[in-house]
Amino acid sequence: MSTHTLKFYYSPGSCALASHIALEEAGALFEPVRVALATGEQNTPEYRKINPKGRVPALAVDDWIVTENPAIMRFIAHAYPDAKLWPQDLRAEARCAEWLAFMSCTVHPAYAHIRRAERYATGDSAIENVKEKGRETCREIWTMIDQKLAKDPWAAGEHFSVADGYLQAFWNWGRGQVLGYDMEKEFPNWTAHARRVTARPAVRRAFAREELPLPA
Amino acid sequence: MSTHTLKFYYSPGSCALASHIALEEAGALFEPVRVALATGEQNTPEYRKINPKGRVPALAVDDWIVTENPAIMRFIAHAYPDAKLWPQDLRAEARCAEWLAFMSCTVHPAYAHIRRAERYATGDSAIENVKEKGRETCREIWTMIDQKLAKDPWAAGEHFSVADGYLQAFWNWGRGQVLGYDMEKEFPNWTAHARRVTARPAVRRAFAREELPLPA
Repeated sequence: MSTHTLKFYYSPGSCALASHIALEEAGALFEPVRVALATGEQNTPEYRKINPKGRVPALAVDDWIVTENPAIMRFIAHAYPDAKLWPQDLRAEARCAEWLAFMSCTVHPAYAHIRRAERYATGDSAIENVKEKGRETCREIWTMIDQKLAKDPWAAGEHFSVADGYLQAFWNWGRGQVLGYDMEKEFPNWTAHARRVTARPAVRRAFAREELPLPA
Repeated sequence: MSTHTLKFYYSPGSCALASHIALEEAGALFEPVRVALATGEQNTPEYRKINPKGRVPALAVDDWIVTENPAIMRFIAHAYPDAKLWPQDLRAEARCAEWLAFMSCTVHPAYAHIRRAERYATGDSAIENVKEKGRETCREIWTMIDQKLAKDPWAAGEHFSVADGYLQAFWNWGRGQVLGYDMEKEFPNWTAHARRVTARPAVRRAFAREELPLPA
């Protein structure tokens, strides 16, 4: 990839942290480009040229662009094989892909029903209703993830993989304003996992760039 | 895989069609197991042992189980490399993974807001509100997919891949009762793609098992 120009479009503390961690773990040289979600920069014509869906993350390799966290992570893992971010074993890699799919299609949308309820309903009363249901669903999902992380140090196979970096983005959301969980007390297995993940120098570089506090 | 027993848990006409097509394309020997969603079989203790999330599809290889369409398809593509269901090229495979992620995390949830609105809100009025918004979102998404399929015969790279089989599941939903689109008239590019997909003998076997009509 060294002959290519990589631009990584992200927003601090968003789900893009997953791909950000993968880039740092890969040792990739890239230009980080902040997209100001708070002012709606993702919906400007300029950014819509990068990602017509108006979301982060996006990764531009010269003028070729890939979107969607699971696809960006798969791309990084494939482009930088020495970093071993994707399990080689048939079953471990299926488990990695399963985590990625679960996080993108179940965990993230559940949270979005609280954070971005206006995507799913119209009018104050229905929006509040959707948020309330989203809070129930998130607690169920956070509990399920905590249980799944009780046994093994890493999510898929015997080593760190992109699935672990993706989990870190949602651990962060758990302690954030929208959910407000006491992650250490309520989800101790996941918090132990978060400590393992954030002990890694590459992960710390991504945290530092996004100005995120490390787990206690 | 010939020394293993494969069981494939699905429901006719569900999103499991994507993995079903992949299994047939791979030439895999598998036992198809119907799960009666209409009577809530996915929530029985027996099925929860297969998939604690209570969803189809699930694939059991002996007593090892993988869930989530993108992960099952990735597993099948890896386990049966001769079928070439996953592009080898770095960029084409990223595009394949991007389609899989987009379909599982955006297209499927948008439809679920109409078909399974009770997952996202409580009470008749809020549920109806969520359905209405879901109908808007689905039309936007169906339009976007139709545009993306205007140029190339296949979704990712120069050949059929698991992404094309996944698209077929949603084309079917488009013509179904919940959305009721005139797919041929309203989404002609996607319908041309559906004809290419369903011209394949393996896809026809999956359609026959699920008792689905082929596109006109």
